[in-house]
Amino acid sequence: MSVEAEIITIGDEILIGQTVDTNSAWMGKHLNDAGVDVDRVVSIRDTKEAIIEALEDVKPKTKLVLMTGGLGPTKDDITKYTLQDYFGGDLVFNQKAYDNVARIFKMFNKEVIEINRLQAMVPSSCKMLLNEMGTAPGMLFERNDVYYVSMPGVPYEMRHLIKTHVLPLIKEKLNAGVVIHRTILTQGVGESFLAEMIKDWQDELHEEISLAYLPSAGMVKMRLTVKGRDEQFLNGLIENAVSELLPQIEKYVYGTEDDTLESVVGKLLKDNNATLASAESCTGGNIARLLTTVPGSSTYFIGSVVAYHNDVKQSMLDVRKEDLIAHGAVSEPIVMQMAKGAKEKFGTDYAVATSGIAGPDGGTEEKPVGTIWIAVSGPNNTITRKFSFGNNRLRNIQKTSFMALNMLREELMA
Amino acid sequence: MSVEAEIITIGDEILIGQTVDTNSAWMGKHLNDAGVDVDRVVSIRDTKEAIIEALEDVKPKTKLVLMTGGLGPTKDDITKYTLQDYFGGDLVFNQKAYDNVARIFKMFNKEVIEINRLQAMVPSSCKMLLNEMGTAPGMLFERNDVYYVSMPGVPYEMRHLIKTHVLPLIKEKLNAGVVIHRTILTQGVGESFLAEMIKDWQDELHEEISLAYLPSAGMVKMRLTVKGRDEQFLNGLIENAVSELLPQIEKYVYGTEDDTLESVVGKLLKDNNATLASAESCTGGNIARLLTTVPGSSTYFIGSVVAYHNDVKQSMLDVRKEDLIAHGAVSEPIVMQMAKGAKEKFGTDYAVATSGIAGPDGGTEEKPVGTIWIAVSGPNNTITRKFSFGNNRLRNIQKTSFMALNMLREELMA
Repeated sequence: MSVEAEIITIGDEILIGQTVDTNSAWMGKHLNDAGVDVDRVVSIRDTKEAIIEALEDVKPKTKLVLMTGGLGPTKDDITKYTLQDYFGGDLVFNQKAYDNVARIFKMFNKEVIEINRLQAMVPSSCKMLLNEMGTAPGMLFERNDVYYVSMPGVPYEMRHLIKTHVLPLIKEKLNAGVVIHRTILTQGVGESFLAEMIKDWQDELHEEISLAYLPSAGMVKMRLTVKGRDEQFLNGLIENAVSELLPQIEKYVYGTEDDTLESVVGKLLKDNNATLASAESCTGGNIARLLTTVPGSSTYFIGSVVAYHNDVKQSMLDVRKEDLIAHGAVSEPIVMQMAKGAKEKFGTDYAVATSGIAGPDGGTEEKPVGTIWIAVSGPNNTITRKFSFGNNRLRNIQKTSFMALNMLREELMA
Repeated sequence: MSVEAEIITIGDEILIGQTVDTNSAWMGKHLNDAGVDVDRVVSIRDTKEAIIEALEDVKPKTKLVLMTGGLGPTKDDITKYTLQDYFGGDLVFNQKAYDNVARIFKMFNKEVIEINRLQAMVPSSCKMLLNEMGTAPGMLFERNDVYYVSMPGVPYEMRHLIKTHVLPLIKEKLNAGVVIHRTILTQGVGESFLAEMIKDWQDELHEEISLAYLPSAGMVKMRLTVKGRDEQFLNGLIENAVSELLPQIEKYVYGTEDDTLESVVGKLLKDNNATLASAESCTGGNIARLLTTVPGSSTYFIGSVVAYHNDVKQSMLDVRKEDLIAHGAVSEPIVMQMAKGAKEKFGTDYAVATSGIAGPDGGTEEKPVGTIWIAVSGPNNTITRKFSFGNNRLRNIQKTSFMALNMLREELMA
């Protein structure tokens, strides 16, 4: 039996689209790792009515309710008073909470004003959870064997309270089991083709293992999950499933767990002691940007020419004018010359080049918007591929970058 | 009376923390703009039981329920079958949905396989909503004057369906009233200083108009909102307020509504009939990428050199070796030479250059991580600025790009 939890985020900012709720995903991940399943996330307004309604909506099987938000010092933060109402008791002064407020104010050389003194008042029905990262204390209520934790919505304060109070509570009071995830990252194959390819494997999959497909631009993540009590047994089960799966989809797998295509390419370059440059037309620098988001990328990434104008392709990458005239910029000869030119000019072992019509305008009958050429040039040879993407400029840039990095990955592994 | 909506996101990925829910904030914003209040966001598992429970939990006053997720072609996507069960009817083949699937597969030169043919099957109880961005159609159900819309969870597919189907539905069927927003984009001034500056104006603001400050990296958005029935009256009200506000903060305003710094810079370049190049070290191509996200940017953006390695700064931008040795790459003389070199090499009117220590490593006592130099070179002069940002690599890249574009904007307006 797994332990079920629910998250309630309080505050209008998510509902009106002012803030993206990153807290819930963070809590979900950390609870999950601790063997607790988040069964539901509910985002509500910061009104007394909405908070009480959400508390009453909590499912019978839920053992842990995590609430964030509505704990600031200003008038519109009403979570504490609502919880006092709901769980009973008086609002009492808490010396430890006050000392913490005073410490924080002293750190910023400020006097504690009345409005902040109020933050040290907590309902007598709760256990105060010391929040060393901020002035609003956390609160733990218990009713009918269900634990309710109220925390500020400020991400680093919430994270601190989860680590110092909630995870220990889960360990001590809730008898949570083990959850193991394995994530496999694939590229260059659609969800449905992937599913078709591994149909037999999936049919034979141990019933304890669940499989999810998470597609996003240009890639599909596959996630295997197993839950239970016997960690060693579960580990064996999932390792076994993964080792049976991988050979079947080997050519599409570019990484596992938290890998990114750019970090995988970076690692391969490092392992091969090789260097890289890029020559980008339609991707406009996005490939260089992705590569340089990786810390330490300066050891293998030398530089890039963004050759947006055709003159630049000639002057900086030695692309031949007669080929530009004969074939146009979006063509195999040009993208090939761009890659070779970049390799030459930057003195690298590898270079990747892109040329295409990102859109929304600029397409022709022969070369519609979304027509993309990619070249990867290595120490021994240069490969090219043509793609036909859609009409969305940003997606075309993104997809082209992913595909280019993947072609490079394949070359590095060849 | 406002129209209330609820969002239900279906899928384990948010609950286990694999995906941050950006969809809900996007929907919240766009519904809000259309006069609809999102009252609650609920994220649930992709099980039949959880979906039905969530549908039954919808509040009585809710008029619109937006569901995302669980519509892929694979076995773990069960939203469609659950909705068919819940709303009744048979699963029927929809020719338009099929044609769309076939069109998309043809675009990628792929055969439609059986599993994708199934995507063209929709419950007879729904109206199929054509999803031109993907193979899973949207579905619209109606029961007791409440509209239920099911959409894929892939952000660009969801956005497409909201724009082409949900917003028109709101306009036609839900009497949502008028909401008018005006957004003013400022940079170079903090939220509290801005508030102080316009205190009198704000005190005199018509009570129907609300004002929100939305700060993010390097900028503050101000949003004025007015709601009601009489569009002409409301328009006059808000226009009046804006025209009184603007002169007071003129020097900080870089745009309005959906402007971005890169689109504003692009417009200024076009208006000035001027061209631009970039020479990027620490930003790794991000400035070029931002500039080229703007459709039509090829008319003024010529190209970029990402000079990640110092040799590239010399060979491609004519930076002097002796200055590199004397001052280091992160210095005023170097960033200045990079900008001038880019302007020269690309033959442009303007060039922007960056050199800095993005981190997490590479800092020294004299030049800690976050030390950034930016130069903008124009037809007549070259200006430079030094910044000291923090330790976060991605934020340093982002902030540097933003500041560089803003310096360029100021030069273009000077």
